[in-house]
Amino acid sequence: MSTRQIAVLVGSLRKESFSRKVAHNLIELAPKSLELAIVEIGDLPLYNQDLETETPPQAWQAFRDRVRPAQGLLFVTPEYNRSVPGGLKNALDVGSRPYGKSVWGGKPGAIVSCSPGHIGGFGANHHLRQPMTFLNVPLLQQEAYLGSVDKLIQADGKLVPATAEFLGKFMQSFAAWVDKIAGG
Amino acid sequence: MSTRQIAVLVGSLRKESFSRKVAHNLIELAPKSLELAIVEIGDLPLYNQDLETETPPQAWQAFRDRVRPAQGLLFVTPEYNRSVPGGLKNALDVGSRPYGKSVWGGKPGAIVSCSPGHIGGFGANHHLRQPMTFLNVPLLQQEAYLGSVDKLIQADGKLVPATAEFLGKFMQSFAAWVDKIAGG
Amino acid sequence: MSTRQIAVLVGSLRKESFSRKVAHNLIELAPKSLELAIVEIGDLPLYNQDLETETPPQAWQAFRDRVRPAQGLLFVTPEYNRSVPGGLKNALDVGSRPYGKSVWGGKPGAIVSCSPGHIGGFGANHHLRQPMTFLNVPLLQQEAYLGSVDKLIQADGKLVPATAEFLGKFMQSFAAWVDKIAGG
Amino acid sequence: MSTRQIAVLVGSLRKESFSRKVAHNLIELAPKSLELAIVEIGDLPLYNQDLETETPPQAWQAFRDRVRPAQGLLFVTPEYNRSVPGGLKNALDVGSRPYGKSVWGGKPGAIVSCSPGHIGGFGANHHLRQPMTFLNVPLLQQEAYLGSVDKLIQADGKLVPATAEFLGKFMQSFAAWVDKIAGG
Repeated sequence: MSTRQIAVLVGSLRKESFSRKVAHNLIELAPKSLELAIVEIGDLPLYNQDLETETPPQAWQAFRDRVRPAQGLLFVTPEYNRSVPGGLKNALDVGSRPYGKSVWGGKPGAIVSCSPGHIGGFGANHHLRQPMTFLNVPLLQQEAYLGSVDKLIQADGKLVPATAEFLGKFMQSFAAWVDKIAGG
Repeated sequence: MSTRQIAVLVGSLRKESFSRKVAHNLIELAPKSLELAIVEIGDLPLYNQDLETETPPQAWQAFRDRVRPAQGLLFVTPEYNRSVPGGLKNALDVGSRPYGKSVWGGKPGAIVSCSPGHIGGFGANHHLRQPMTFLNVPLLQQEAYLGSVDKLIQADGKLVPATAEFLGKFMQSFAAWVDKIAGG
Repeated sequence: MSTRQIAVLVGSLRKESFSRKVAHNLIELAPKSLELAIVEIGDLPLYNQDLETETPPQAWQAFRDRVRPAQGLLFVTPEYNRSVPGGLKNALDVGSRPYGKSVWGGKPGAIVSCSPGHIGGFGANHHLRQPMTFLNVPLLQQEAYLGSVDKLIQADGKLVPATAEFLGKFMQSFAAWVDKIAGG
Repeated sequence: MSTRQIAVLVGSLRKESFSRKVAHNLIELAPKSLELAIVEIGDLPLYNQDLETETPPQAWQAFRDRVRPAQGLLFVTPEYNRSVPGGLKNALDVGSRPYGKSVWGGKPGAIVSCSPGHIGGFGANHHLRQPMTFLNVPLLQQEAYLGSVDKLIQADGKLVPATAEFLGKFMQSFAAWVDKIAGG
């Protein structure tokens, strides 16, 4: 069975963001059948249909070219004001266009949200799910809300063991999900 | 009774966007007690806490300075992928920071959503409501979903009479709401 | 200023439910300007329009008669499967009918959610907010998610001091909200 | 390949409900690989954990016994007050218990919503999706919002051709989804 390429989207642009650290852990925790790489979203101009000419912004094109060949999607995101960070939603919007050329359709996905508070980004997590129906991204129906995330990451950047174990299982489920959806 | 300053945020960046046209109509339809002005969101860099230094991006500062003195908020938005356009959510995020200095808190708000389809931006409309609890924006509990919006705007940019009448009443309700929340 | 009658709806039907205990605490913590009473929802037949004859179910009529004169609404609810308990949603549905005779319209409301887990019923809390737009219930835009609620209630049924203080302030905000919406 | 048993849940209890009529059409439109049957939810007592004794209500037991062996789930629902009808949410709650014995887990599902208005039950449709993450019901990521549903059903109870064609394709997608999730 071949390796699956997974595009990882991180919802925070802060260099030392918890979400990015969690993403790096998830990449290490993943089974060998998945090859994960972060696709950056921080330099994407805000979506504006007027820019959707024959020469759209270079950053849009590069982003679309990065996501298009991926066989799965992993979202790791904080919550901004009880919803998806604007920057991450913008990446979804950019990738969904131009009309009829969405890069998302049919790719299996999974969502991990995190926050320093105790709610673990529940609001962002579920708001991110709603577009996935329209974008035809079949989602792993498992929950990963990392509350008090600042206490779950150790000085060396590694997750505490209990969380690593939890997310290791999550990534195994995701790998099985990718296999099921992407086929044999 | 003094005039109330209302900041109008338009969710689409397209020059000829339906939302912008609807916003212009709403500005004309509003009672005299409201003075509305569009606050632009298209040049706001994506929120990134690393930029929240003593000299944050100029566009952020200008935006915050424009919204801060407003006494009410009117959102006019399309739906992108069944949720809030990334650019509009980004504006919410920018205005909510730095911590403790949100420009949104306590301001009465109202939401109008629109789409060429028949659902009228319901998904964007309600996803926009969720952050308002956290941001403490008391919302007018009236619904305005403009479906088939392309057919509701005439060649001269004016709304068809039935929609103008509907939104005229909506703006009267909004003016009463602003008075109630902002006080005498 | 006269006393305001507040209908309290409890989302769990279990006798010893945490939500009911929290509701009793909220009743005691409320300022004197509010007079709160629980309106029971457990014996309401499931909403079925065929029963909306000249003699609808007695329990429906009694419920509607109890809520109609109230000047405000306080919801205290657990989360069932990441959303509003069916029984509480059914009460909303029963009270919203027959068409044109909703008992909810215009009444100021507030929501407290709780759960033994750490998320504090966020999913129920926000799903309960969506119908309020349609039902025209202006909501207090303050958040009260009581996580680990089993540890917040003492043997004598009283909330631990920190939570009591938090909810005491919440009830003061609610009383001010009711005054603002219900008028002088 | 063997036939798959699909439990159909109808969100309205009204005898002549549009949702029920749509459900009957869906049953006829389904490919031969699916065997669909409506599981009634109208006589389920409201969920109350105190009744979860060794002899829970007979109607709960019968419902759980009906859903448990199903290999897929099809929800057909109206929208009540911009969310899931209380009765349908109650059925979800009943089937999810007692703890550890949910009848939902792992079953592939699909959702069709309808309303006489133009929004087609979008609010119910997406509120129904949120619990599915928790209940581990992998959902077909295709949208079916039937607006103006009263005009889509003909005198003989059959859907108008365009809608029948649309839903016929939807059911083929659902059959493929069931095969993919339920395995070979």
